[in-house]
Amino acid sequence: MGEAGIFQNEHLLILRRMNWPDSWLDHIRRRFPRLEITSLDIDTSKPLEENVPKDILERATVIALMTQRHLPLPESVPNIKLVHTFSAGADGLINEPYIKNTDLPLTTSSGIHGPPISEWVLLNWLVSSKHYNSLYEGQKRHEWISRQYVQVTQSDHVGKRVAILGYGSIGRQIGRIAVSLGAKVYAYTASAHETPESREDRGYIVPGTGDSDGIFPVEWHHGTSKDDLRRFLRETKPDHVVISLPLTTATYHLFDSEEFEVWSDALSPSTISSANEGEKFPPRKGFLTNISRGKIVNTDALLTALEKEQIRGAALDVTDPEPLPADHPLWDAKNVQISPHISWSGQEYFVRALDVLKINLEKLERGEELVNLFHRRRGY
Amino acid sequence: MGEAGIFQNEHLLILRRMNWPDSWLDHIRRRFPRLEITSLDIDTSKPLEENVPKDILERATVIALMTQRHLPLPESVPNIKLVHTFSAGADGLINEPYIKNTDLPLTTSSGIHGPPISEWVLLNWLVSSKHYNSLYEGQKRHEWISRQYVQVTQSDHVGKRVAILGYGSIGRQIGRIAVSLGAKVYAYTASAHETPESREDRGYIVPGTGDSDGIFPVEWHHGTSKDDLRRFLRETKPDHVVISLPLTTATYHLFDSEEFEVWSDALSPSTISSANEGEKFPPRKGFLTNISRGKIVNTDALLTALEKEQIRGAALDVTDPEPLPADHPLWDAKNVQISPHISWSGQEYFVRALDVLKINLEKLERGEELVNLFHRRRGY
Repeated sequence: MGEAGIFQNEHLLILRRMNWPDSWLDHIRRRFPRLEITSLDIDTSKPLEENVPKDILERATVIALMTQRHLPLPESVPNIKLVHTFSAGADGLINEPYIKNTDLPLTTSSGIHGPPISEWVLLNWLVSSKHYNSLYEGQKRHEWISRQYVQVTQSDHVGKRVAILGYGSIGRQIGRIAVSLGAKVYAYTASAHETPESREDRGYIVPGTGDSDGIFPVEWHHGTSKDDLRRFLRETKPDHVVISLPLTTATYHLFDSEEFEVWSDALSPSTISSANEGEKFPPRKGFLTNISRGKIVNTDALLTALEKEQIRGAALDVTDPEPLPADHPLWDAKNVQISPHISWSGQEYFVRALDVLKINLEKLERGEELVNLFHRRRGY
Repeated sequence: MGEAGIFQNEHLLILRRMNWPDSWLDHIRRRFPRLEITSLDIDTSKPLEENVPKDILERATVIALMTQRHLPLPESVPNIKLVHTFSAGADGLINEPYIKNTDLPLTTSSGIHGPPISEWVLLNWLVSSKHYNSLYEGQKRHEWISRQYVQVTQSDHVGKRVAILGYGSIGRQIGRIAVSLGAKVYAYTASAHETPESREDRGYIVPGTGDSDGIFPVEWHHGTSKDDLRRFLRETKPDHVVISLPLTTATYHLFDSEEFEVWSDALSPSTISSANEGEKFPPRKGFLTNISRGKIVNTDALLTALEKEQIRGAALDVTDPEPLPADHPLWDAKNVQISPHISWSGQEYFVRALDVLKINLEKLERGEELVNLFHRRRGY
């Protein structure tokens, strides 16, 4: 392995917009000792041809790049065999000539976001359920607030019902953690997943995480319409809904006033019964988590749902509009936790994106099917 | 089941110091329709004999009580078959005549704390690793702080090394969650656990949680001395140490200056190498979590370790002294998260304590060995 002829004359060109430790390439160097590697820092707002010397592009056989805007023009890269992007998706690139006019492979770094985003989700669930902000404020005041705190009705996740809209690499790692807490996972996907095979996901996954085999959900539901979603909410009565869907015309404002009402009704005391119910405790209410795109939720409807306490709270890493203006009412809405679209971030990001690249260099060498290959017809 | 003769004349006396919804007893009533149940609210600071009418105590065959101080005097309860306490431990009760002068069974509610305490641990890990407090303060200021935030070196838990001191019901649920995050668990216990059987824990466990079979740790270590602990820290190089041990003469100040130094040295760049290392990132440092008793850690040594940044931070649900006085320097120590001994609390507490009681009523009826039986010789 790695000593076969094919990788003798390959030239990997890495185009970055930030510096990183050179040691991050050691894994690739060790695996492919004869591979020539060139790393350049570029301005990704401009076409690659304005950033990179012509002869370097011409000699490149593999390009790995950090961009959501520009792929090389096919005529600039006559020897290219693969373009790999450090982004999770390729939705900004579908009109590029490389995609429209060639059959050359493009691979993405999809799958690397599972750990940081799922941990952001857990953090926010627990900040809410454990009333963390009051503990933090208590510490700032140097106050031992045990008496007040213990009377707050915090609750843990054993037996809680977690609905995950979009069961991809991120949803699957959220599912994995939720099950470890003792919760039940309900997967909601666009198409049916009736057989064990159809529940598998063979995209890149960070080793030791996720749910490649699709074994964690207690139920799989599917649909693409608002009717389907409402039926799902009525049937599963979720304590948590996590939005992990792509933004499409079908998902724009998927969560609107009626969906909040259906969800709230599904959890009303007349609809459910629970061992924890009783006069001392508040009724069950849902908690909404959005890690995908702000426009999947109608912000005005969300504001109303929070104000009327139709839901227990919401954690939003994405908003509509974004960035959220300083005078927007969402900042101070009841029981809302907002972060500035950072749930993906972490120091492991590029190490994992380079791991996807290494795997695809191995597959290229062996002539195997690439992982995370962008499919032109499907559009992802 | 439940219709056999033995439970015809039983009288369950429940002694509480707070009211709860009567519906919480429905499970027991349904399972034992002929069981007579009396519930009384009492002042647990006084002996039971001063709280409860003599004839009620005399008729009781099972007493379930919420106390860490007083058991009934043996002569007050001539018909008693079982005393069950809603506390997790019985350490405050070992000098009671019921323990010293009889062989009558006492059972505890050990095992019910796993979910709330493990979620408190996870919350605190994530507050630290995700720099949550800066997100919260940003929201309060209505500021979209994505640019500043993404440059902070947050990190997730994949591949992190989690050392759990004391692998009981709480440690096991922490282990279960840590593994779901992609972390590696190192168990540290007082005695050796070489065989699969010895790694089992058959105490009460909240269904769907924990690690009854002891399958999650990648390694088991053991010991009781400071030398043993230091060797463990040197060998496992943990990113996290969780203290989940009882306070004994052997664990008093178990974590002192030398232990912080050994731990810090074990993680120094000359000792380890990691894919994430590089000039951009800070060196690996440990994070201490104490959910047990404050006196297991020397507070002065902890203050020094935090001040000198020998550790990355600490999450403390317990302190020494406790409550922590308003003018204590620990409140404002670097990277410390303090909560007022509340990690156990939650609305599920008594429902689960009653579930342990129900299981033991069933075992009593069938003549089986009780779960969570207090062993007089072992002292727990």
